[in-house]
Amino acid sequence: MLPTPKKYFVTAAAAEGATKLNAFDNALLAARIGNINLIRVSSILPPGTEYEPNLVFPPGSLVPTAYGYIISDVPGELIAAAVGVGISRESFGVIMEFSGKCTEAEARAKIEGMIREAFDRRKMEVIEMKIAAVEHRVVHIGCALAAVPLWY
Amino acid sequence: MLPTPKKYFVTAAAAEGATKLNAFDNALLAARIGNINLIRVSSILPPGTEYEPNLVFPPGSLVPTAYGYIISDVPGELIAAAVGVGISRESFGVIMEFSGKCTEAEARAKIEGMIREAFDRRKMEVIEMKIAAVEHRVVHIGCALAAVPLWY
Amino acid sequence: MLPTPKKYFVTAAAAEGATKLNAFDNALLAARIGNINLIRVSSILPPGTEYEPNLVFPPGSLVPTAYGYIISDVPGELIAAAVGVGISRESFGVIMEFSGKCTEAEARAKIEGMIREAFDRRKMEVIEMKIAAVEHRVVHIGCALAAVPLWY
Repeated sequence: MLPTPKKYFVTAAAAEGATKLNAFDNALLAARIGNINLIRVSSILPPGTEYEPNLVFPPGSLVPTAYGYIISDVPGELIAAAVGVGISRESFGVIMEFSGKCTEAEARAKIEGMIREAFDRRKMEVIEMKIAAVEHRVVHIGCALAAVPLWY
Repeated sequence: MLPTPKKYFVTAAAAEGATKLNAFDNALLAARIGNINLIRVSSILPPGTEYEPNLVFPPGSLVPTAYGYIISDVPGELIAAAVGVGISRESFGVIMEFSGKCTEAEARAKIEGMIREAFDRRKMEVIEMKIAAVEHRVVHIGCALAAVPLWY
Repeated sequence: MLPTPKKYFVTAAAAEGATKLNAFDNALLAARIGNINLIRVSSILPPGTEYEPNLVFPPGSLVPTAYGYIISDVPGELIAAAVGVGISRESFGVIMEFSGKCTEAEARAKIEGMIREAFDRRKMEVIEMKIAAVEHRVVHIGCALAAVPLWY
């Protein structure tokens, strides 16, 4: 089987770029995950995974990552992205991501609600949430991105 | 290289949720793949992969999975998702996924046609198809999902 | 951790199909990556990765791949896809992908600009670019696809 991740952090950032993909790339760089190969996952924190906010990845590594983002080319538009990790006392956690045309505070509130529903549905109790969120006012082409990289 | 999967099953389920991502999460739970990290793949059944309908995954595992889904927030709308695995006698198989605003029967028929074309194009013969399909009438926010998890 | 890839090539192809997913599947076959499980990555060439244009993958392998594609069911529409790998002298490279309703030449030019911006932003120098691009005039349902498979 593929090795199950053991560490994580949460990050969010925004950036402009000359194209949509460059805006995304620049937001990844600003979020400290620009020089790796993100493999998108959907979205459980394995039991016992440790929070390590200063993780550094070897360039080009394959990094399982839950993320949400929004790219806009409408100048003046407000965009936001948020991720959250809901942590249980003894078992696995749940990761939620959100992006939309709203404020950072609204994105954060949305994530909290999503995590609560995910835990309710699993009849589990949330003892902590780690949330990262960002908002960005588009100048030309902007990207707001939030991510939970999982690592070893 | 990444280890090639050796087992699989097919699953389909639908659910409502308070948000689109929660509807997706709840459909994953209903399909028995809610507490893992899906890595989306596109979409071949490796040679010799065995069908194991009762697979249980350790929480948080990275699970290569072919899947299709549709999320709707239009009350009353009928949505459906289907996956199918076309199996050959001695070689690899082909996985197809579909989702749309239609019945389960229509989604299933669509998958059969897709698998036949995939085998024709490869000049291979289908000896069996395993299909999972589901339809759902949206109440508030609903998700129909069908998946082929691959495992070890 | 997941093993970091060591080899790559670039490929692009287009095809028609009876459905959108079959058009995609047929384009993958034409690009020589149709009988594997693509895991989509975003998008760095690990340091030291070697270019091997004749790579053959065991069927069903999990292959980390950066790719872009466009599917159209508008007869007569011109679609194109391109990928590019920007290579540095001593460090990692950057992969960019693009697809749109344009010519192959336009897609190629777009990729070059994207790679230049990605290197500028990282204060790195591009010493070489490998680009694969394709254009396709849609007959019924067509897919143009470009990919950078990473391997071991």
